[in-house]
Amino acid sequence: MTDDLRINGERLWRSLTEMAKIGATPKGGVCRLALSDVDKTGRDLFKSWCEAAGCTIIVDQMGNMFVRRPGREASRPPIGMGSHLDSQPTGGKFDGVYGVLAALEVVRTLNDHAVETQAPIEVVVWTNEEGARFAPAMVGSGVFAGVFELDYAWGQKDRDGISISEALDRIGYKGDALPGDHQFGAFFEVHIEQGPILETEGKTIGIVKGVQGMRWYDVALIGEEAHAGPTPMERRRDSLAGATQLLPKIYQLALDRQPFGRATIAQFRTYPPGSRNTVPSRAEFSVDLRHPDADQLAEMDAGLRAITAQVATDRGLEHSITHVWEAAPVSFNPACVDAVRNGAEIMGYPAMEIVSGAGHDSVYISGVAPTGMIFVPCERGISHNETESATPEDIAAGANVLLQAVLQHAQRTS
Amino acid sequence: MTDDLRINGERLWRSLTEMAKIGATPKGGVCRLALSDVDKTGRDLFKSWCEAAGCTIIVDQMGNMFVRRPGREASRPPIGMGSHLDSQPTGGKFDGVYGVLAALEVVRTLNDHAVETQAPIEVVVWTNEEGARFAPAMVGSGVFAGVFELDYAWGQKDRDGISISEALDRIGYKGDALPGDHQFGAFFEVHIEQGPILETEGKTIGIVKGVQGMRWYDVALIGEEAHAGPTPMERRRDSLAGATQLLPKIYQLALDRQPFGRATIAQFRTYPPGSRNTVPSRAEFSVDLRHPDADQLAEMDAGLRAITAQVATDRGLEHSITHVWEAAPVSFNPACVDAVRNGAEIMGYPAMEIVSGAGHDSVYISGVAPTGMIFVPCERGISHNETESATPEDIAAGANVLLQAVLQHAQRTS
Repeated sequence: MTDDLRINGERLWRSLTEMAKIGATPKGGVCRLALSDVDKTGRDLFKSWCEAAGCTIIVDQMGNMFVRRPGREASRPPIGMGSHLDSQPTGGKFDGVYGVLAALEVVRTLNDHAVETQAPIEVVVWTNEEGARFAPAMVGSGVFAGVFELDYAWGQKDRDGISISEALDRIGYKGDALPGDHQFGAFFEVHIEQGPILETEGKTIGIVKGVQGMRWYDVALIGEEAHAGPTPMERRRDSLAGATQLLPKIYQLALDRQPFGRATIAQFRTYPPGSRNTVPSRAEFSVDLRHPDADQLAEMDAGLRAITAQVATDRGLEHSITHVWEAAPVSFNPACVDAVRNGAEIMGYPAMEIVSGAGHDSVYISGVAPTGMIFVPCERGISHNETESATPEDIAAGANVLLQAVLQHAQRTS
Repeated sequence: MTDDLRINGERLWRSLTEMAKIGATPKGGVCRLALSDVDKTGRDLFKSWCEAAGCTIIVDQMGNMFVRRPGREASRPPIGMGSHLDSQPTGGKFDGVYGVLAALEVVRTLNDHAVETQAPIEVVVWTNEEGARFAPAMVGSGVFAGVFELDYAWGQKDRDGISISEALDRIGYKGDALPGDHQFGAFFEVHIEQGPILETEGKTIGIVKGVQGMRWYDVALIGEEAHAGPTPMERRRDSLAGATQLLPKIYQLALDRQPFGRATIAQFRTYPPGSRNTVPSRAEFSVDLRHPDADQLAEMDAGLRAITAQVATDRGLEHSITHVWEAAPVSFNPACVDAVRNGAEIMGYPAMEIVSGAGHDSVYISGVAPTGMIFVPCERGISHNETESATPEDIAAGANVLLQAVLQHAQRTS
């Protein structure tokens, strides 16, 4: 029986608070971009905590960190748990880091009670989950799972032209281990929901069944510069006016597919940037489409292409659509989903099944190991935002479910 | 009689071609930002041509250049003609520079034929008409006309924090003369139309009756960052989605007031700029509203404020509207308009009355001197664009009308 164990919520909260000081922003959030100096400081602190907990640490060539607590059978694949330490440029104190520090708290709790397990346990930090500094997102777990080649990932550059390989060298986190050199018996990730559903439904635990598929695009509409005064409205080839006609149709692709469809348009810019009295010749923006059903997502993709071409034709504009990246919808391993459900039941927390709208490292890991996720509520569903917030009670609850789920797979022996 | 005189169209075209090499862009346009090194090179070349034409040159404290050809009565106010040498960042070969070099060609023609006038004649180069590097636009003529204080203009800074005063010192074009220290008997400016009307109507000369009024704004819609995946569409406070609802209503303010109304939205940006999977918390853009009727323009102003507030309320967004600048509609001096009409008649050019949709230095000069403008067609009405184009025949025609109009006011004596 494992239901006598409880993680130390106060210690977990204290660790989160300590880590949030690294890269803290004036508005109460965090800016800890992947492989930055700040990320290094955060990793160093985390490493010191792991060493204090008696763990051994291995870093692979992608900077992924594997923090091992031995099991009785050293040869058994470890039960993994973790997430990421990097953040959005104006991110919050919980996204990713909670999954890492909750996993560390599980290890500390097992130490406190001298609990032994058959399988080893590993706390994992995945490199560059956010994709904010380097595209693509989730690249560390992606390389580990064989989705991306190591050379491809190493070569990805930030806006200043610094590659992931250079950035890893610079902060001293390019290890020797080959990414994907070992298997996991199972992998669990606890994360804030980053949406309002648990809060709205009054549940503490989200039993994550799977993850929405998503597709990313860069779209441009191209017209012609013209003087703002003399050029009659009907003679303009105005890229921005075209975009105002197109964008509502893109949002409609998601609105027609509720409650799961999502369409987010961002990074919008017009050119020339320096003139307010020139009709914009070019409008650029990113599009992020999501749906948990692959067929629906494919329909959204076709819809985006059709309406963009149609609006461009109507408006006498050129257009381009670059397909930047995609992730197919994922269903998590039924045994892992059950382990999360059981954990919530053992603890007596109100729980519900949920589909993740966001991508997570667990998406890629689910391709190479039985994987499950646990969600806890965050205030008003706000995330990727400096005001991101969660209660100490919910944070502790998620870690307790993680503890239960991991112990079910790692097999407690004492 | 002055109808025996003709400007040298070939020489004028050659001068335009020479000047277009200074700041030439790969796409065939010009980037000669106000008070840049390139602007200095252009001014220096122009100055050498004026000296070769036997003129004396005075530069005022705003860098405005006054190139004088003496008249018989030195005490009479000169008849001015001119425009500007600066360009948009991706501008064309005719906007502004044509008005300056056509004026120089008038002087060269008078020299060729040893024509004397009662009044002196002055070719004028106004500083920073475009407003691309330094806001506000037309600041050199504005200071000359007493619309702006010299200290205010000197203090205006570009994006790198360099002030107009510093930039004038750096290129050596801060003269000693006090801006506005002398009067003009009349002032004429020839310019490409920057619109398609003359071309569409098959006319060579536009007799410019006046200039549209215009108002410039910076508008922002402010919502809340949220994660692109988990956040349900209906829970978002998406600044960009709000903007897509607002922008068509802004365009409609102009569409409801055809054929004269204009609404141009530009410099559109969303924040955070670095994340494609974060719902944009902030959308910013500039708005440029124009109409030749002051009451209509005031209604457009009120409309912009009302619909922005309404959309913000509907969408749960904050908003801000900053009124950046405005220019009231202008009616040019009837005697000057008649001089242009007579000039076109004498030359036998097809002509029509027209209202300028763009601001010009003549707008401010019309406040301190009888002023008129002449338009010639430009290809497809395109301007503020590297493909801006006009025919040598139309360019020559405009200069001939300028010659006729100026001579009517300067009084030919030989």
